[in-house]
Amino acid sequence: MPDVHALTRALQKKNDSKIVLLVADGLGGAPLSPGGKTELETAQTPNLDKVCQNGTSGLSHPIMPGITVGSGPGHLGLFGYDPWEYQIGRGVLEALGIDFDLGPKDVAIRGNFCTLDDGGNISDRRAGRIPNEVGAPLCEKLNKIEIPGVEVFVRHVKEYRLVIVFRGDGLGGDVYDTDPQATGVPPLEPQPKKEGSERTIEVAKEFLRQAREILKDDAPANFLTLRGIANMPPIPTFEEAYGTKAAAIAVYPMYRGLARLVSMDVLDAGQTLEDQCGRLEQAWDDYDFFFMHYKYTDSTGEDGNFDAKVKRIEELDAAIPRITGLDPTVLIVTGDHSTPSLLKSHSWHPVPTVISAKSCRTDGVSTFGEQQCIQGGLGQFESKYLMPMALAHAGRLEKYGA
Amino acid sequence: MPDVHALTRALQKKNDSKIVLLVADGLGGAPLSPGGKTELETAQTPNLDKVCQNGTSGLSHPIMPGITVGSGPGHLGLFGYDPWEYQIGRGVLEALGIDFDLGPKDVAIRGNFCTLDDGGNISDRRAGRIPNEVGAPLCEKLNKIEIPGVEVFVRHVKEYRLVIVFRGDGLGGDVYDTDPQATGVPPLEPQPKKEGSERTIEVAKEFLRQAREILKDDAPANFLTLRGIANMPPIPTFEEAYGTKAAAIAVYPMYRGLARLVSMDVLDAGQTLEDQCGRLEQAWDDYDFFFMHYKYTDSTGEDGNFDAKVKRIEELDAAIPRITGLDPTVLIVTGDHSTPSLLKSHSWHPVPTVISAKSCRTDGVSTFGEQQCIQGGLGQFESKYLMPMALAHAGRLEKYGA
Repeated sequence: MPDVHALTRALQKKNDSKIVLLVADGLGGAPLSPGGKTELETAQTPNLDKVCQNGTSGLSHPIMPGITVGSGPGHLGLFGYDPWEYQIGRGVLEALGIDFDLGPKDVAIRGNFCTLDDGGNISDRRAGRIPNEVGAPLCEKLNKIEIPGVEVFVRHVKEYRLVIVFRGDGLGGDVYDTDPQATGVPPLEPQPKKEGSERTIEVAKEFLRQAREILKDDAPANFLTLRGIANMPPIPTFEEAYGTKAAAIAVYPMYRGLARLVSMDVLDAGQTLEDQCGRLEQAWDDYDFFFMHYKYTDSTGEDGNFDAKVKRIEELDAAIPRITGLDPTVLIVTGDHSTPSLLKSHSWHPVPTVISAKSCRTDGVSTFGEQQCIQGGLGQFESKYLMPMALAHAGRLEKYGA
Repeated sequence: MPDVHALTRALQKKNDSKIVLLVADGLGGAPLSPGGKTELETAQTPNLDKVCQNGTSGLSHPIMPGITVGSGPGHLGLFGYDPWEYQIGRGVLEALGIDFDLGPKDVAIRGNFCTLDDGGNISDRRAGRIPNEVGAPLCEKLNKIEIPGVEVFVRHVKEYRLVIVFRGDGLGGDVYDTDPQATGVPPLEPQPKKEGSERTIEVAKEFLRQAREILKDDAPANFLTLRGIANMPPIPTFEEAYGTKAAAIAVYPMYRGLARLVSMDVLDAGQTLEDQCGRLEQAWDDYDFFFMHYKYTDSTGEDGNFDAKVKRIEELDAAIPRITGLDPTVLIVTGDHSTPSLLKSHSWHPVPTVISAKSCRTDGVSTFGEQQCIQGGLGQFESKYLMPMALAHAGRLEKYGA
């Protein structure tokens, strides 16, 4: 099949339609014992059920059956970007996750403070998990590092974790981690994975030289390792790919960052689902496409708390009438991946998905659940095809060929 | 997955089987309101239902979920040709649509007569929609144009529309339309989209120069614009790709043209479905594969006439016993795309499809309809895989690998 964007770019047209993509993070689940119900099947979801009755349901695979994805590839798939073609490095995700405004000349790096012993070997790869009150001022000190020809940004993330960004010309992102993943050995020197990152290696070496000097009296955080060194990938903007003006209404930084990656406008979302719905109502006339993100279906799944996940799904359900009250042309409810409480982690299980629009066919699905979605009219599909379907139902795609 | 033809070419074998591909144009529909029935679900189709009971059903996507196709890509997909790989330009389709016998050295162009004012600007892009009685003789005059080194053919299509074909060596098809899509401005000069069409541009300029002289006293049709300038794409023949001798039984020129594109024999189909069935019976012993085309499921959908589409489906159903009476080894009933009356246009909705053969598995689908096909044994699939399935059920493909 051709590239999604080759078609959406060639065929896109504009109108007054509104599309809402509501992502319940980690939505899909699993029963606690064979033959049982999932979290979504257990939850009372009268409003989501109604969306299904008026819509077409199915199960989406973020990248391939059997493959579990992280939030980055999960969301890229939903945004219609092939998660295999657009690989987002760990450093970039970490920077996006703290709302850092990454640009095309940036190399982003995840840093870990570590402890070096007198022989220069790593004795603790996490510097005794120093608290934020210790980590943050150390990052401010490192942020003063100056290297000719590049800008250096150092930002604290949490405890022993930080983000480093080098900004300048010719900075490749193909550099190995300096964390040896072991104690009793020295940190590794920055080494190239392939050609084109020579300048990054020079800069990283100079950064580490100065950091060693600056931190020398700050044990247990007397040095740091560099991980997930990565460039911002060149990635088409949402507007260019689809011709829609898009806004993100997400509470958590990671998801705001993923939206920023595809050049959506990131709106102030407040703290609660209610705040997010209020923001959606306010911004309704200003955008064509709205990405709303709900985190707690994932976090309760990660906690292994089946009942809490059920409750969070019911909270989400209660917010649906505020969204449908705006009469969106197309409403999609889905997840970026599954997070079954049973596994306390992301999983590969396909994600229950519904698309609702006046042009939907009836498929007989009357309740929103994994088992019901098996019978749905969308069948099982790669999540990257959700965007062309949304644009189609919104009347935003011309015919291909005569 | 590998190219369909790489496999069908390598594995094809011959036998006495007969395959009938019955294409009901724009077959798929949609309910007029959420939860309702489609045209096909509403129609009484006892004969098609029986085909489903003996066959395997599913839903086909011409190119990708969400993408609406025209008749060209829609049919290429059904013929097993990837509609993205084989792109058919508008001029080629227009020429095929009037039964013009296009060859590999041809550039085909759709022409529109237009009106130029005294300043040379277009005052009417359709020349007042001149009647056929005016358009046809003007085309005969233009058909006398001579240009050294190329053959020039000018054929009338309808009212202000015509087809121009240049035949010769080195004629590329990458030339922009000369229709400015606006009035009050002059027609555009032929301009290259990319390299390789220099000769076509020279020829087109000379053609337009002579045409302006010939038509100067024929206002409102005192000039013409060139659109959809395109080459015949190199395309494998049906016989080479599949090892079958194929005949097309289609009433409308466009579909005869599409069959000719893949080198099917185009038979005289008469005017009615009854004529077509008679032709099928007559030709039964002479071919392995029959493409039958039924137009009215599309045209009634385009008209937005739900009830008329239902009636046309029932007419098609009534013709099924004449086809099954011939005892084809494989019978496929499908559409090239959906055309819901709701939308009055082609749509992206997947197309109800059934393949019937003695080697089919039972899938529980007992009536032919979109919702029923969701549950069918073919699932959802790209239409280009229909041909390998048809050949398989016909015993016309060897095993791949030992």
